[in-house]
Amino acid sequence: MQIRNIPFIKTLTLLLLILMNLGLKAQDHPCLVLTKQGVREIQSQLGKVPLFDTSLADVKAEVDAEIALGILLPIPKDFSGGYTHERHKKNFLILEKAGVLYQISSYEKYGVYVRDMLLGYAKLYPTLPLHPQVRSYARGKLFWQALNDANWLVYVSQAYDCVYDFISPADRFIIEKDLLRPFADFISIGSPQFYDRVHNHSTWGNVAVGMLALVLKDEALLDRSLNGLKENGLPTDMKDNDGGLIKKQGQKTGFLANIDEPFSPDGYYTEGAYYQRYAMYPFLVFAEALQNNKPDLKIFEYKNGVLLKSVYALLNLTNSVGEFFPLNDAQKGMSYYSRELVSVVDIAYIYGGKDSSLLSIAKQQGRVQLGYSGMAVALGIKNNLEKPFEKISINLSDGADGKQGGVAIIRNKNKEDELTLVLKYASQGLSHGHYDKLSFSFYNNSTDVLQDYGLARFVNIEQKGGGNYLKENTTWAKQTVAHNTVVQNETSHFGGDFETGSKYASEKYVYDVSNPKVQIISANENNAYPGTTMQRTMALIEEEGFEKPFLLDIIQLDSKTANQYDLPFYYLGQIMSANFAYETAKIQEPLGKSSGYQHLWKEGNAILATDNAKISWLNKGSFYTLTSATQPDDEVVFVRIGANDPGFNLRNDPGIIFRKKNTQKATFVSVLETHGSYSPVTESAKNAYSSIETLKIIYEDANYIGVQIKNKSGVETLFLFATENNKSNQKHSLVINNKTYNWIGPYYKLKK
Amino acid sequence: MQIRNIPFIKTLTLLLLILMNLGLKAQDHPCLVLTKQGVREIQSQLGKVPLFDTSLADVKAEVDAEIALGILLPIPKDFSGGYTHERHKKNFLILEKAGVLYQISSYEKYGVYVRDMLLGYAKLYPTLPLHPQVRSYARGKLFWQALNDANWLVYVSQAYDCVYDFISPADRFIIEKDLLRPFADFISIGSPQFYDRVHNHSTWGNVAVGMLALVLKDEALLDRSLNGLKENGLPTDMKDNDGGLIKKQGQKTGFLANIDEPFSPDGYYTEGAYYQRYAMYPFLVFAEALQNNKPDLKIFEYKNGVLLKSVYALLNLTNSVGEFFPLNDAQKGMSYYSRELVSVVDIAYIYGGKDSSLLSIAKQQGRVQLGYSGMAVALGIKNNLEKPFEKISINLSDGADGKQGGVAIIRNKNKEDELTLVLKYASQGLSHGHYDKLSFSFYNNSTDVLQDYGLARFVNIEQKGGGNYLKENTTWAKQTVAHNTVVQNETSHFGGDFETGSKYASEKYVYDVSNPKVQIISANENNAYPGTTMQRTMALIEEEGFEKPFLLDIIQLDSKTANQYDLPFYYLGQIMSANFAYETAKIQEPLGKSSGYQHLWKEGNAILATDNAKISWLNKGSFYTLTSATQPDDEVVFVRIGANDPGFNLRNDPGIIFRKKNTQKATFVSVLETHGSYSPVTESAKNAYSSIETLKIIYEDANYIGVQIKNKSGVETLFLFATENNKSNQKHSLVINNKTYNWIGPYYKLKK
Repeated sequence: MQIRNIPFIKTLTLLLLILMNLGLKAQDHPCLVLTKQGVREIQSQLGKVPLFDTSLADVKAEVDAEIALGILLPIPKDFSGGYTHERHKKNFLILEKAGVLYQISSYEKYGVYVRDMLLGYAKLYPTLPLHPQVRSYARGKLFWQALNDANWLVYVSQAYDCVYDFISPADRFIIEKDLLRPFADFISIGSPQFYDRVHNHSTWGNVAVGMLALVLKDEALLDRSLNGLKENGLPTDMKDNDGGLIKKQGQKTGFLANIDEPFSPDGYYTEGAYYQRYAMYPFLVFAEALQNNKPDLKIFEYKNGVLLKSVYALLNLTNSVGEFFPLNDAQKGMSYYSRELVSVVDIAYIYGGKDSSLLSIAKQQGRVQLGYSGMAVALGIKNNLEKPFEKISINLSDGADGKQGGVAIIRNKNKEDELTLVLKYASQGLSHGHYDKLSFSFYNNSTDVLQDYGLARFVNIEQKGGGNYLKENTTWAKQTVAHNTVVQNETSHFGGDFETGSKYASEKYVYDVSNPKVQIISANENNAYPGTTMQRTMALIEEEGFEKPFLLDIIQLDSKTANQYDLPFYYLGQIMSANFAYETAKIQEPLGKSSGYQHLWKEGNAILATDNAKISWLNKGSFYTLTSATQPDDEVVFVRIGANDPGFNLRNDPGIIFRKKNTQKATFVSVLETHGSYSPVTESAKNAYSSIETLKIIYEDANYIGVQIKNKSGVETLFLFATENNKSNQKHSLVINNKTYNWIGPYYKLKK
Repeated sequence: MQIRNIPFIKTLTLLLLILMNLGLKAQDHPCLVLTKQGVREIQSQLGKVPLFDTSLADVKAEVDAEIALGILLPIPKDFSGGYTHERHKKNFLILEKAGVLYQISSYEKYGVYVRDMLLGYAKLYPTLPLHPQVRSYARGKLFWQALNDANWLVYVSQAYDCVYDFISPADRFIIEKDLLRPFADFISIGSPQFYDRVHNHSTWGNVAVGMLALVLKDEALLDRSLNGLKENGLPTDMKDNDGGLIKKQGQKTGFLANIDEPFSPDGYYTEGAYYQRYAMYPFLVFAEALQNNKPDLKIFEYKNGVLLKSVYALLNLTNSVGEFFPLNDAQKGMSYYSRELVSVVDIAYIYGGKDSSLLSIAKQQGRVQLGYSGMAVALGIKNNLEKPFEKISINLSDGADGKQGGVAIIRNKNKEDELTLVLKYASQGLSHGHYDKLSFSFYNNSTDVLQDYGLARFVNIEQKGGGNYLKENTTWAKQTVAHNTVVQNETSHFGGDFETGSKYASEKYVYDVSNPKVQIISANENNAYPGTTMQRTMALIEEEGFEKPFLLDIIQLDSKTANQYDLPFYYLGQIMSANFAYETAKIQEPLGKSSGYQHLWKEGNAILATDNAKISWLNKGSFYTLTSATQPDDEVVFVRIGANDPGFNLRNDPGIIFRKKNTQKATFVSVLETHGSYSPVTESAKNAYSSIETLKIIYEDANYIGVQIKNKSGVETLFLFATENNKSNQKHSLVINNKTYNWIGPYYKLKK
């Protein structure tokens, strides 16, 4: 620290204060993520563990640059993406890092920086009204939503913990009285609609209060964190600005309730992977702090160790390059390279028995959390302990009891290639849920083959609606037709009604990946459209005569009334060919008026005469062909997203909709082939054609469906499926075209 | 070679034949690309030079797999992409490789394979009528166009050369009489409209004939190659199926004429980089063969060494990852990783004085040509001789005399970042030319910021029109409105008439990159629209207060009549914001009826009231803002490609068109900023806003234009330009707002 420019008397005071602090230093700070013992261990390894050292150097460079810039505390006014928002966000991220640097390096400048900024905030905070932007159901003071204020306190509590002993009791008094305690009170008692709820927002609130409670050793505050408010006075029908229900009768609240309810026993978080990622940081970092301070709580064993299971669930909810499947509201591209997952993986490593496969994820991340867990991970990598993290086919149940449907991920790996099916048959997923029962997405390595659109929002890009959810998120992204699943009569599942949707989940019917060459998921949905039952069965099948596994998709619908059924497939890339005549539109009109249809341009259509519709496209050097068993008068509609989009908020991606009109029963059977390659450098197109000669439904009654796939090289595949009996030991016998087929269990795959 | 399964007598005959051949072996085969001396040198280095060894191993594996498959000579029937086309194409590629393997390894099996396949072809060829597909202006026999037949002979001549001494005289007699000589005659005398022309097609034809001539030591045939047909009997108005003129009165033909005319003194090939790449292989490989056989011709010194210069021109015509700028008909993504460029770079290394910067390109390519030049390159790399190939700003003249306009490439490099402007002010570029005078494209590293659409074709993908040019290539890709340049009255330059367009080129006005912070290109076009003059001046300027260099674009139009002027910018990505109100279309209609306008959906528009229109978008993690100095009643039209596209042949990319109506004079001034970043992983938007406060035309008369750019941080940039006097020593004095500016040379850039 350069002190020559500081007047002598000030220097003396400072030195005295430091000496006083040294003398007064209690034995219990830091206590949250860092501990005294942890710090000693880190210091003993400094300079010896490359990944930790580079992480430390990166953080030091970042913090030093901010210190050089000076302390900036603008009056809050902007949405996310705007200057004041981003500045205060940066402040809390840097404060936490400066706190850690103070502990690890013992350089005073970091302590001074944290202290001075906290004193600055202690002056500013009492003067602040509610944030001037009024969009949120729970406005903050530093930020437009209390959620971001809670983020602030989660990080700042850690910073304060790190420099607690450095700050004089007098300054601590000011910081706690004028800033931290009122801050915690405001986001909890002062914002019950935000705090006292089961939602990722509340988790942040609960953790913010809890982290501060641990630093302050305030048991009452800790109870408020773990168990929520005693009385919140909220009306029961209150909703947030995303349309999510705030209060459910008799629902527990607080941190523990936020573990109990949204996590399934498999560790799936009901909001989906994107928000699970967001919530995992407070979940895990607070769990670590609780473990350090309240080991008797055995938080990592809570609910059968669900917090650790959730880390594995989350890592499995990624494509081949670590990007989360964008279920529900989710920004595409978010991945396990995010800062949250760096912390989470490190914490899970230490508190989950040092699973060496986590080290390979950490190694990909290329950085570690600056703390004891991060050091342990960096050491493990230094000692070459890592093993590959093998992502497998996995079925993740949803719901607190695991009985609210789920998400199945089916993977087929071959050398470096990975095909992945994600079928969603989960519950609504709270306020960020989409109306897409039995929807799916499909990946060829990291390429979206049939995409889930994700959210309609540009997170933190201020120009785009303040970085917040855009209205197209509701009118498009959440609607059923935005997904690869069936829409009845151009209305979304549950009529797009959140409360109705929240009552039901789809049901798993069959999940069987025991044969790696025939991996199958089947689920039923009987509530999305009252009076209509829907079963979707998808199988990823390796078969002779096919270059790569193909995806078989069977949907059966049965209704009390005659309906129109639409099944969209949102492909990406360029259409190569179709085996039927179609018309393209001379003038493009929206496909419908509501439920998302108003956002689809009708590019073209065909009324089919054939019994097999085949469409091929090229995307990023691979060919794909979708072959569908169709009936005469089925319609195919070519669509493109982007109609009624006055602010260019939507991506203009294409889709194909299969439409059946005026029918009670309907069966959609399709096969998606991934095949061949094209390179603009060699200009060579390999295996550019479908291998399927015909696709047929050769049998269908109330209990069975049989599908036949004839391959161009003469291979014939039969797939027989028992639609009403999923017992694995059930014997079946079925006569098709005078031939009897006998098998045990729900499905039978036969190659002729 | 395994001989135990061959009956004894056959083996004996074979051995005798081999011995005979050894005895008879002339001293002059191989003589084209490989020579006896070259082979000896290669053999002496085998196993010691990694890049050569891996290239050899790859080729060996490929050829061995083909030999195992057996010889396949299907009756020709398909377009490119179809089986018979791809099979015969594979045959000639493999034959050449097998020939080289025979020379390098001396394994008989390669000699046998080449011989047997040639004997097979010698049986097939005399039976073949013209290819059944009738689309080409010059049909082949093995392929739908004579061009591909010529490809075949270029490679097969090399194969034959390699195994010449291995094949018995009797078999040689058959092969030459029934296959090679009639083949060469058919593609030359038999196809004068293909052969006797200045065009990349003809180059292949000339080289095919010439390569065979060298193998056969046939001087008359060689003369036919070098100097064309004596008499071709072609009508003067004949056109090919791309609309290209075949015969020009008094035009020389043959290989030398095909160097003389399409290459400018700077080595720019008038058709554009994509076809230059395609033609470079026959140019360079025949040059190498001529050098080996006719050293007195000094072919590498011909026309001041233009063949070697053209290699450098071509390497400079690439973006940061080696992809060619898609000028004229060009498939995007084609790059210097193509097989043609591997050969070309290797040959240029050996015959161009072993320029070590070429080694770094070869190292990126990761393979070498199997021959003496490839061995030299691999040795150079092994010995770590390579130096970086520094791509610089470069102005490439067009036209045989360098006076037919040109292409300017202006680059600004900063650390790892490279911004690249490509301004095209060239001649028509023969039959593959587009009608896009003064058009430009702009790159941020390898990202298309403002794109050149390239061609409308899926080369060798059979489903897409037989892999050939699609009709949308004519109706869209070649039209002016498909490019980032001005369209008058919704008609293309020269009325889209090839003959008229072929008469004119734009003229360079200023090219000055002497100041790396203000690099400038300016050109005039006075013939695209009779009675209208057009000057476009673009400058890539590094300025204080801007994160990255900005692109200043000034277009001045002056016409004898009042017109509508449209200036499109084909951006990619998502619109973030606009500083003006606009309407989006409820129903989308095509923007016009012809000249490419029929392919544009009108997505939205605005009649401007402001004097600065600002539009920002996000593409692949970078923000871009286009600020335009506008006049009241200027219109902005948002468009998307894809209307009237009945086969989904077009990419549905967006564009913005600035439109000025009913005016004789018009001035478009715009600044494109590249700024900031966004990552979906950090969800942090950095520098997401334009740095420009205002953009103004502060002066304009018949001789000068002055542009002022006020930056938000207070920096004011003045750019003064003399529009009618480009002398570098000219003194200028201009009074603007009572202030006098004095400078020398065509432009003055001042920072206040």
